Amino acid sequence: MFRGRDIVSIKEITPKEMDKIFEVAEEMIPIAQSAERSSLLQGYVLANLFFEPSTRTRLSFESAMSKLGGHVIGFANPSATSLAKGETLADTIRMVDEYSDVIVIRHPYEGSARLAADFAKHPVINAGDGAGQHPTQTLLDLFTVKREFGHIKDLNVGLIGDLKYGRTVHSLTYVLSNLGANLYLISPSLLRMPKHIIRELKTKPLETEKIENVLPELDVLYVTRIQKERFPDPNEYRKVAGIYRITPKLLENAKRHAIVMHPLPRVDEISPEVDATPHARYFLQAFYGVPVRMALLALVLGVI
Amino acid sequence: MFRGRDIVSIKEITPKEMDKIFEVAEEMIPIAQSAERSSLLQGYVLANLFFEPSTRTRLSFESAMSKLGGHVIGFANPSATSLAKGETLADTIRMVDEYSDVIVIRHPYEGSARLAADFAKHPVINAGDGAGQHPTQTLLDLFTVKREFGHIKDLNVGLIGDLKYGRTVHSLTYVLSNLGANLYLISPSLLRMPKHIIRELKTKPLETEKIENVLPELDVLYVTRIQKERFPDPNEYRKVAGIYRITPKLLENAKRHAIVMHPLPRVDEISPEVDATPHARYFLQAFYGVPVRMALLALVLGVI
Amino acid sequence: MFRGRDIVSIKEITPKEMDKIFEVAEEMIPIAQSAERSSLLQGYVLANLFFEPSTRTRLSFESAMSKLGGHVIGFANPSATSLAKGETLADTIRMVDEYSDVIVIRHPYEGSARLAADFAKHPVINAGDGAGQHPTQTLLDLFTVKREFGHIKDLNVGLIGDLKYGRTVHSLTYVLSNLGANLYLISPSLLRMPKHIIRELKTKPLETEKIENVLPELDVLYVTRIQKERFPDPNEYRKVAGIYRITPKLLENAKRHAIVMHPLPRVDEISPEVDATPHARYFLQAFYGVPVRMALLALVLGVI
Repeated sequence: MFRGRDIVSIKEITPKEMDKIFEVAEEMIPIAQSAERSSLLQGYVLANLFFEPSTRTRLSFESAMSKLGGHVIGFANPSATSLAKGETLADTIRMVDEYSDVIVIRHPYEGSARLAADFAKHPVINAGDGAGQHPTQTLLDLFTVKREFGHIKDLNVGLIGDLKYGRTVHSLTYVLSNLGANLYLISPSLLRMPKHIIRELKTKPLETEKIENVLPELDVLYVTRIQKERFPDPNEYRKVAGIYRITPKLLENAKRHAIVMHPLPRVDEISPEVDATPHARYFLQAFYGVPVRMALLALVLGVI
Repeated sequence: MFRGRDIVSIKEITPKEMDKIFEVAEEMIPIAQSAERSSLLQGYVLANLFFEPSTRTRLSFESAMSKLGGHVIGFANPSATSLAKGETLADTIRMVDEYSDVIVIRHPYEGSARLAADFAKHPVINAGDGAGQHPTQTLLDLFTVKREFGHIKDLNVGLIGDLKYGRTVHSLTYVLSNLGANLYLISPSLLRMPKHIIRELKTKPLETEKIENVLPELDVLYVTRIQKERFPDPNEYRKVAGIYRITPKLLENAKRHAIVMHPLPRVDEISPEVDATPHARYFLQAFYGVPVRMALLALVLGVI
Repeated sequence: MFRGRDIVSIKEITPKEMDKIFEVAEEMIPIAQSAERSSLLQGYVLANLFFEPSTRTRLSFESAMSKLGGHVIGFANPSATSLAKGETLADTIRMVDEYSDVIVIRHPYEGSARLAADFAKHPVINAGDGAGQHPTQTLLDLFTVKREFGHIKDLNVGLIGDLKYGRTVHSLTYVLSNLGANLYLISPSLLRMPKHIIRELKTKPLETEKIENVLPELDVLYVTRIQKERFPDPNEYRKVAGIYRITPKLLENAKRHAIVMHPLPRVDEISPEVDATPHARYFLQAFYGVPVRMALLALVLGVI
């Protein structure tokens, strides 16, 4: 089912396949926590090709591979490499493909992970390609929700912040809707979820500018950073920067069991005081990146 | 005694605890030399967070972890990372803490290792924080002396060079004095050991500008580099640069069994001809960094 | 025969020793392909010292060490290190020598690998030193030819492109001639093989500017890139850039079993359409870098 498969887009993974990934991820948790040891991937080599820096994703994959006894080669930053000698991406991929058993690629251009997958014999995992996909982020987000509530269907999930430029939030919205969650999209009008994304959803989400309007109904509040670098015009950015800020005071109106998630890094959209509340899940969510990636690596390498 | 402990300052380690570290380090030597194999730390992940470059310390920790079968993730240089996105150090640490079992941090600002230790659930080892502490350097220095002479009490130890700005020499002085060594502080008057350090010592050290005055009495001569980058004023640097140079000729007046140490890198404060004399211990001292760090890692991870 | 040996120049390896390396490399192939697992080098540490970037060679060594269960420390780029503090190369090598079991060095200056070998106690492998040697590239080139044809003697081998500045092609020419191959040197007159190299050869090679003249006779066509950065004068480069381009159409006149090799990266000297022809061997050749380096590492570390 997974052996040899490329993981390029979340849309290619069926709900049944997600369940399998999450089932394996669950078994990986004690290994990720060093409560158990494993040498499942001993002798296997992961090539981590980061054509743009992404320390978080890179370290999470390195940890996942290491915990299973595998090794990692690659680069964190293309400027430190000799890849600039005029070689095509296809050739770079085929070269690395000869040195490794699985390739993780992060690249600034949309479509680059697909191209890599087309040229590599070994499985390719997309770790973010420009404004495109970042499927392992979506998987770890879903795993966090599922592990918390046991199901996704009928949950009230609010997504807040930059819903226009935010890459991963589009994929997440699509899958949450597919799995039967009720969506609440909270953003300034400048940063509304694009119409073409909303049209693809199974059920119509509720859109609002004011978090206060919907907070009491939410089971999950997924916060995203408003990223200056995504804005073509700095004036547009200034209008919306800092418009939302999640605080313990605000969360007094949330359900008792409601959780706050964030893909990290946060800047000031969640106040540090929230960390100590029972709502905070963003660091646990970061941890789940390790067992989810362990599961994926083991599955596409065909050792499970 | 050590399981889960942070190693931030040498002052928090008692003499009895040092003995334990050195006892374990002794057992690590054959593994460090590949005469024996070990998979004591298989499945464990060390996060090496170097917010400023320090190739020597970084490679030594990587070697230590690798020799015990563990894996290393991290970064050698923050500019190659995406950490600049406005994230606080506390958040970076908590994120990495989710991916690893032990964190080693090198940071340009004093106090950053303490902050990291406060936020991480896993043990944090300080690998140098600005003008602050560098406890593993101090431990390997002491291990070198102890292994050579069997004891530290009553040894005559001379420290020469920059005793004012030199970070690690302050910690070393403090511990040597505590353990009963007789100290000889040799420096130009511009670079004398600060008064507040001297006041903390158990016994009053002998201070001099001329190495010839004290060399015949020394068991250990610990040489430090006069680092241009520590001087606020380049004129001050020029006055003292190259003032001391250890040569075989000079060492003719040393005790037969006296040893010369240096934290490395050296520039020209020890002439290369000294390398072949029976006094040179600085490369052996560098080697001892591996078993000492192996011991620390195994102890704080609680596997010994 | 190999234990503890430095691999600095291909000229120091006898034909009988090459046979031994290739015999071990053959056994390494299933491990390199993850069809078998090995922990032959578990507990051993390779120091990868890349004083200039060379992603290909670096990743190939990292893969080789990892496949045998060993670990890699080092740096990909000296600017990311603290080595610039005025330390001599000899001191850097001796420091790293204390942390590792085998050293791989890539350095822009000719002779630096020899110097490293002179100072290190552990074996040193030259991964390219300026205009000097790159012996593991030569070994993997020979292994590719040998594995394809079973022998090298009496094969007709054409070398095409930059035969003047191309570093590795000089070593390769020397060894091929020594092993009894018939050489065809194809280059523009500006880029002819230097006379002092030709004088060293066992038999006089055929020199020509036109590939069409000799292609039908060749068993092996070894293509090299014409590297702009090697030319002192950019006008000289413009005259010869793109002068040769291997295409499927051109290869219609080649022997049916003839193979096309290239050390990679290619720019446009081999058209991508050649990749699908039965002649292309350059990616397989890249793969062979892994088992050949695995063999070398195991041999110099004395575990075989």
